[in-house]
Amino acid sequence: MAVVVMKFGGTSVANIERIQNVARHVKREVDAGNKVAVVVSAMAGATNQLVDWVRELSPLCDAREYDAVVASGEQVTAGLLAIALQSAGITARSWQGWQIPIRTDATHGAARIAEIDGGRLRARVEQGEVAVVTGFQGIESDHGRIATLGRGGSDTSAVAIAVAIGADVCDIYTDVDGVYTTDPRVVPEAQRIARISYEEMLEMASLGSKVLQTRSVELAMVYGVRLRVLSSFVDPSDLPAVDVGALGDIGTTVCSEDEIVETQVVSGIAFAKDEAKVTILNIEDKPGVAARIFGPLAESSINVDMIVQNVAPDGLHTDMTFTVQAAELPRALKVLERVRADLGEFEIRSSDDVVKVSVIGIGMRSHAGVAAKMFQTLSDKGINILAISTSEIKVSVLINADYAELAVRALHEVYGLDAQ
Amino acid sequence: MAVVVMKFGGTSVANIERIQNVARHVKREVDAGNKVAVVVSAMAGATNQLVDWVRELSPLCDAREYDAVVASGEQVTAGLLAIALQSAGITARSWQGWQIPIRTDATHGAARIAEIDGGRLRARVEQGEVAVVTGFQGIESDHGRIATLGRGGSDTSAVAIAVAIGADVCDIYTDVDGVYTTDPRVVPEAQRIARISYEEMLEMASLGSKVLQTRSVELAMVYGVRLRVLSSFVDPSDLPAVDVGALGDIGTTVCSEDEIVETQVVSGIAFAKDEAKVTILNIEDKPGVAARIFGPLAESSINVDMIVQNVAPDGLHTDMTFTVQAAELPRALKVLERVRADLGEFEIRSSDDVVKVSVIGIGMRSHAGVAAKMFQTLSDKGINILAISTSEIKVSVLINADYAELAVRALHEVYGLDAQ
Repeated sequence: MAVVVMKFGGTSVANIERIQNVARHVKREVDAGNKVAVVVSAMAGATNQLVDWVRELSPLCDAREYDAVVASGEQVTAGLLAIALQSAGITARSWQGWQIPIRTDATHGAARIAEIDGGRLRARVEQGEVAVVTGFQGIESDHGRIATLGRGGSDTSAVAIAVAIGADVCDIYTDVDGVYTTDPRVVPEAQRIARISYEEMLEMASLGSKVLQTRSVELAMVYGVRLRVLSSFVDPSDLPAVDVGALGDIGTTVCSEDEIVETQVVSGIAFAKDEAKVTILNIEDKPGVAARIFGPLAESSINVDMIVQNVAPDGLHTDMTFTVQAAELPRALKVLERVRADLGEFEIRSSDDVVKVSVIGIGMRSHAGVAAKMFQTLSDKGINILAISTSEIKVSVLINADYAELAVRALHEVYGLDAQ
Repeated sequence: MAVVVMKFGGTSVANIERIQNVARHVKREVDAGNKVAVVVSAMAGATNQLVDWVRELSPLCDAREYDAVVASGEQVTAGLLAIALQSAGITARSWQGWQIPIRTDATHGAARIAEIDGGRLRARVEQGEVAVVTGFQGIESDHGRIATLGRGGSDTSAVAIAVAIGADVCDIYTDVDGVYTTDPRVVPEAQRIARISYEEMLEMASLGSKVLQTRSVELAMVYGVRLRVLSSFVDPSDLPAVDVGALGDIGTTVCSEDEIVETQVVSGIAFAKDEAKVTILNIEDKPGVAARIFGPLAESSINVDMIVQNVAPDGLHTDMTFTVQAAELPRALKVLERVRADLGEFEIRSSDDVVKVSVIGIGMRSHAGVAAKMFQTLSDKGINILAISTSEIKVSVLINADYAELAVRALHEVYGLDAQ
């Protein structure tokens, strides 16, 4: 017997037929004697419709009201799935965030879970009742208003519920059957990764892989929750019920490093197309200049990623290149215009015609030469590197967007990730 | 300054444009210095979509889950209206049933309001904040689950909120500009009624007029809440703001009898097409036979309305005719089959090809001859009466559905209700 959290995203509950399919996935676990809590997103498209209505009324609206409107989507799915389960002869009830309660901070629209009182939920689950929990939302403690966790927040809800009820595993059902070495649409030879460490998954998520929300992986890592990524788009009877002793047989298991017997030097290649490059030319090279550029950007909550600085031939001026999210480029440029008024003339150039390609692998820690091999491979293909950033377990380069697929394919092959 | 509850139904909030129109109605009251609580229904069509999904999963589902799903519609409208009001510069917030809380009994799907703790709401409204309250729903006290009040329940929510915050008037905005002497689609000469007593409105509502939910009128009568029926489909600037001293100038005011100076003998003609007639022929005429027929029907929660009994020429057998809601006819017939097995052979005939036409007027109490005039008028038109029922302030007859319009027009004229 295992205690299992099963999370189903928007495409997995997009219509009544798919909700019935989810009910069959849950039934498989119940029939095997497992205790189950399910976390659901809104039906695909529902949240977008709600957001569109809100935006039509007011582009900058009260986030508390935004949350009250948008949270209704998960409420609908949770009730419908509870009914589908009952129709299949399973004892089940829906739980809304405020009913459990899932307490959050007051950052409406992007709230963080502060505390879950899982006692009542756990008792019901242990008695064999399936709990169907609304993802993406909780209740803000001070005023009792509904707060949502931001896009993709249902993954985080699922992990938090897994912590609260002491689940053995948190299975994230999605429209792919696991985490791949890279996007299979770009590299058909991409392979499913059977086991991946939290650290690697974190890098993957933050570097462009859309399978799991970054925050959910952080939370799983902190509390040691074993996460699995599975597909809901298979016949429910084709998947085995959860067996804690044999989790790694299907999907991708995200777990701690020491549970992975044979680590790869490189686990995967990620790429992110929503980057923009900003270059500042001919700025006076004196102490404090970087702080006077990046300080105002940080104050405006603009996340700066890769930074490269060159000294100009005259030794008095410098050039600086950095990246921001493409969506934040207009705001970043406005901030820089203000900085220019303060710092004196410099030239600003920007482009969102770039892509960040990253090589990720926990084995890098003990293997030299991973970065050198990356640079050599790109050089062999005639691809110019615009910026580089590294961490202990990844190397990222910024390149022209035209070369994205070429670079990803070449790197996937050179690190031995292509399927045999 | 007045404290005003404004209730807007589904067609009044059917889309973003109409929600913005509602915001302008509210702004008119706020600008006049009135304190406002708004009660909203789900956007027209939203509840039907939710109910369809539930039915597709399970025709007979857990009413608690049904309620969790269906209540989401009002949550959306309340949030959207709060945003629209804020965009118009008005301080506003949405309130869900469980946040106030509106406590109900446990009859999910058709719950009754048990208690509203209006203190917090009243304080905020008195400070000038517009409260936008979800209609149709509350929270069931014992288990903290959402409970809905049944179709049309938002009218009842509005009256209950008016009681809880001590409002001066409860304005029900709908797609017509008041209560009419009869349906204007049938009788173009029908006139808007300026003032009508609770008792008459109750009869109108229960006899087929769809303007107000019966229960909301009962509640208003018990607590003496002045109700008005107004149209939201007019330019908000064309209506005057609430002035407690001059409520009767627009729409229809529903109030106590002693506030109506000049009462009509007959106030209106109602008709209900959703009736079905059941006739039982040749049943043995002995004591207790009626109880053995109507007892089982009552136990099955089937509401029997008009009852007529004739003694057959042999003196030993009797015929009985009664009406039920057309939707309940199949269930009623099943119950009668069981009764027949118990009571011995009798013949059952049924038809939903009937209509109940009612003449309503508080002045009947002091005027004889109202019923006689009704029967004579129908007789003059050659319309056969199938059954009759009367109360202190109404006379209802059951006739063949083919004659419905003819009967309503003739009665409307003969009681002097046609517009001059």
